Amino acid sequence: MEPLNHAAGFAAIIGEAHVLTRDDDKAPYLREWRDKYQGKSQIVLRPASTAEVSAVMKYAYAHHLKIVPQGGNTGLVGAQIPLETEEEIVLSLSRMNSVRAIDPDGYTITVDSGIVLETLQQEAEKADRLFPLSLGSQGSCQIGGNISSNAGGTAVLAYGNTRDLVLGLEVVLPNGDVWDGLRTLRKDNTGYDLKQLFIGGEGTLGVITAASLKLFPRPKKLEAAFAGMRDPHAALKLFSLAKAQAGPVLTGFEIMPRIGMEFCTAHLSGARDPLTAPHQWYALLELSSGSEAFPVKDLMESILAEAFEAGEVEDATIAQSVGQVTEFWRLRHGMSEVQKKEGGSIKHDVSVPVGRIPDFLDQAIAAVIGFIPGCRPVPFGHLGDGNIHFNISQPVDGDREAFLSKWDEMNALVHGIVMEFGGSISAEHGIGRMKRELLAEVKSDVELEMMRKIKAALDPKGLLNPGAMLQAQS
Amino acid sequence: MEPLNHAAGFAAIIGEAHVLTRDDDKAPYLREWRDKYQGKSQIVLRPASTAEVSAVMKYAYAHHLKIVPQGGNTGLVGAQIPLETEEEIVLSLSRMNSVRAIDPDGYTITVDSGIVLETLQQEAEKADRLFPLSLGSQGSCQIGGNISSNAGGTAVLAYGNTRDLVLGLEVVLPNGDVWDGLRTLRKDNTGYDLKQLFIGGEGTLGVITAASLKLFPRPKKLEAAFAGMRDPHAALKLFSLAKAQAGPVLTGFEIMPRIGMEFCTAHLSGARDPLTAPHQWYALLELSSGSEAFPVKDLMESILAEAFEAGEVEDATIAQSVGQVTEFWRLRHGMSEVQKKEGGSIKHDVSVPVGRIPDFLDQAIAAVIGFIPGCRPVPFGHLGDGNIHFNISQPVDGDREAFLSKWDEMNALVHGIVMEFGGSISAEHGIGRMKRELLAEVKSDVELEMMRKIKAALDPKGLLNPGAMLQAQS
Repeated sequence: MEPLNHAAGFAAIIGEAHVLTRDDDKAPYLREWRDKYQGKSQIVLRPASTAEVSAVMKYAYAHHLKIVPQGGNTGLVGAQIPLETEEEIVLSLSRMNSVRAIDPDGYTITVDSGIVLETLQQEAEKADRLFPLSLGSQGSCQIGGNISSNAGGTAVLAYGNTRDLVLGLEVVLPNGDVWDGLRTLRKDNTGYDLKQLFIGGEGTLGVITAASLKLFPRPKKLEAAFAGMRDPHAALKLFSLAKAQAGPVLTGFEIMPRIGMEFCTAHLSGARDPLTAPHQWYALLELSSGSEAFPVKDLMESILAEAFEAGEVEDATIAQSVGQVTEFWRLRHGMSEVQKKEGGSIKHDVSVPVGRIPDFLDQAIAAVIGFIPGCRPVPFGHLGDGNIHFNISQPVDGDREAFLSKWDEMNALVHGIVMEFGGSISAEHGIGRMKRELLAEVKSDVELEMMRKIKAALDPKGLLNPGAMLQAQS
Repeated sequence: MEPLNHAAGFAAIIGEAHVLTRDDDKAPYLREWRDKYQGKSQIVLRPASTAEVSAVMKYAYAHHLKIVPQGGNTGLVGAQIPLETEEEIVLSLSRMNSVRAIDPDGYTITVDSGIVLETLQQEAEKADRLFPLSLGSQGSCQIGGNISSNAGGTAVLAYGNTRDLVLGLEVVLPNGDVWDGLRTLRKDNTGYDLKQLFIGGEGTLGVITAASLKLFPRPKKLEAAFAGMRDPHAALKLFSLAKAQAGPVLTGFEIMPRIGMEFCTAHLSGARDPLTAPHQWYALLELSSGSEAFPVKDLMESILAEAFEAGEVEDATIAQSVGQVTEFWRLRHGMSEVQKKEGGSIKHDVSVPVGRIPDFLDQAIAAVIGFIPGCRPVPFGHLGDGNIHFNISQPVDGDREAFLSKWDEMNALVHGIVMEFGGSISAEHGIGRMKRELLAEVKSDVELEMMRKIKAALDPKGLLNPGAMLQAQS
């Protein structure tokens, strides 16, 4: 059962050069980029085609070998990292990175799963089309991993999660069978929509080898505004009003608290507060349109004017240049980075119904300050998606380790409130290794049982990514 | 095993008045509206709550009784009609028809599954919101049925299929367990997205009792245009150009051939051709925006001007009033009705990738005319979704029965071409009883096997709608 004994068997399928067994060669696949997870694996496999993946899986199935599929290794919950047992083999899709087909008139593209997200975006752009998925890690994450984790990002408000962008998949099943579900149809009601199980399935049901994806018209006009307000209740009103006026043209709505702005101006090189006076909360609005005909700037002014009049916005500024749009987004994207400069940070990637965000924030902020006096909540994120990165920085001059030792208790506190609000303990990052114990706590027995039945039906030997998502049944 | 022997058992759960056993009472639930399917059932059950549905299902599970869930009984493939064996019991959701909650700021609504679609649309409108699903049968179909069949309709281009509108479901499983998946979250990556199996599942995996759905801003401006062109290739170019200019503001793009227009002007009371000269093909474009600020009319003019200049459009007219918009749509919606006046009609609800519609139409039209000389193809529908209702009227003065006797052969011919084009034999109507044999022909063994495994995992006794979708394994 030692995987290493099968190195020659795999080499016969994909070539010796692509069966990595030396520590140096394997290291990049076993270490998660924040060093949060360090896995062990005797072998890393790098097949080059669907046929090779199929043959590898057939071999693994016959020999009861466990497989962890891996894309760009940028996931935040450890779903792509093997356990420490050395029983699992990493299967990297990196060598499968071609565009298979593009249909600009039909607004679709079909790609290998190992293509890097940024490359995919560029290929769409060459055809005057937009592939809207956009993430911090887009320079190295791969579309297969994005699909397996149902990645979110900053374009969800207008274009949906990765799930909403997938038209079809090609998947190699645990027994090596290839499911050709690569359709580019907008409508197809012929049986269960099987692709949905693999989207967000974290590689526990099959290995995604290719995907057909939706494309969109490229935005031709874009405006961004930065607004200051007293609290998240005002931010929600601004969102509701902006959505009513702009509909699908509202492509971004992000919020951050005053302390986030202070962290940015202190630690982000060259960053400055876009508004003259301080405000308790900020919202970043983005409007964009694929139509040259749309008076996007007029609309932004109209939204802000209505919000001023209603007393929801204290001050606001519209970006005067592309550079300033970038500056606004840099403040938002810098939030994680600047928090590192303020000591230890306990994090939550949660969602609640959009309309309940303000009440949730009121209650959760009060609760964490009650739990650790002096701690500094820095909740920010995608208000329009109901998704808040509820991060908490340690007290100033407090002890980092003492603070971080409260991680689990803090999680339990925040997640308890999230559940009261009908929310999710993992809005966009997934379950992976990090939250699999939590999953059993927040899901009903009925739901867990259904998930286990699906897993058993499609992966009866339990060979696919057994360390992720579901705990083995006891 | 006689279902009738259990009438008292069910009456104890839901009350005698709601256990229908008299032929007159049962008739509306057993006859499909076009009289295409006539089922038999000893009992029709009408529970009033999720708890009652759960108790009914527990009872049925314990006694091995088969259940056919039914909404408004408007489905087009017989999925809601029991078989003739009298072994199945119809479970109607009609009495569960309340709005459970609405959140206008968060753009969500939660309803019982038996609510009539039109009522749901009206409830959204009362809150100044849009529920975009729109079908010919909206006055009687129920949202539970729409979800179970993943209904399409005329708003798919902008808002997606029913699947895209569902945020969460409450489902009673075959064993009577209630799965509370009623979430109103825009983002939730905590395990397999189980609701997707029940959406489009045709009641074969569980009984949907409630749903949380997305709402949208109400369109505040709307423009429609009717354009004439030489062929579907020009129509595709017009679509591509309209989508590039209008993006999500393009909310409708339908096509019909000259013969369809002739049928309408001949048989649709008061209908007239919006254009002065005849054209081989027509497109109906609709632009709508939730934003008052959007110059929708200018955009429509700009799209048509560009299309004229490119030589894709021969003539076009923009509706001058709400009444004229209705007239345009009436021509499109009248297509099925007017065909009835022209004798027998053989129908197909198919899709191909959007960019391949013109080539598909060329090939399929030539093939059916070759097969039955004199037959009159009337393909029309949602070009923007790649979905064509490929209907064929009998030859003028030909024999109706002789023509209709070729139904299966004609289907095989057309579906064969659809499959060559990577298309679907059921774009929006589903499989049900009508196409279950076809399903086995067009799906790969790998896919059928996955579907059977899912069915066996969630409905191990095979009690849920056994006549629909999947054939029993031999």
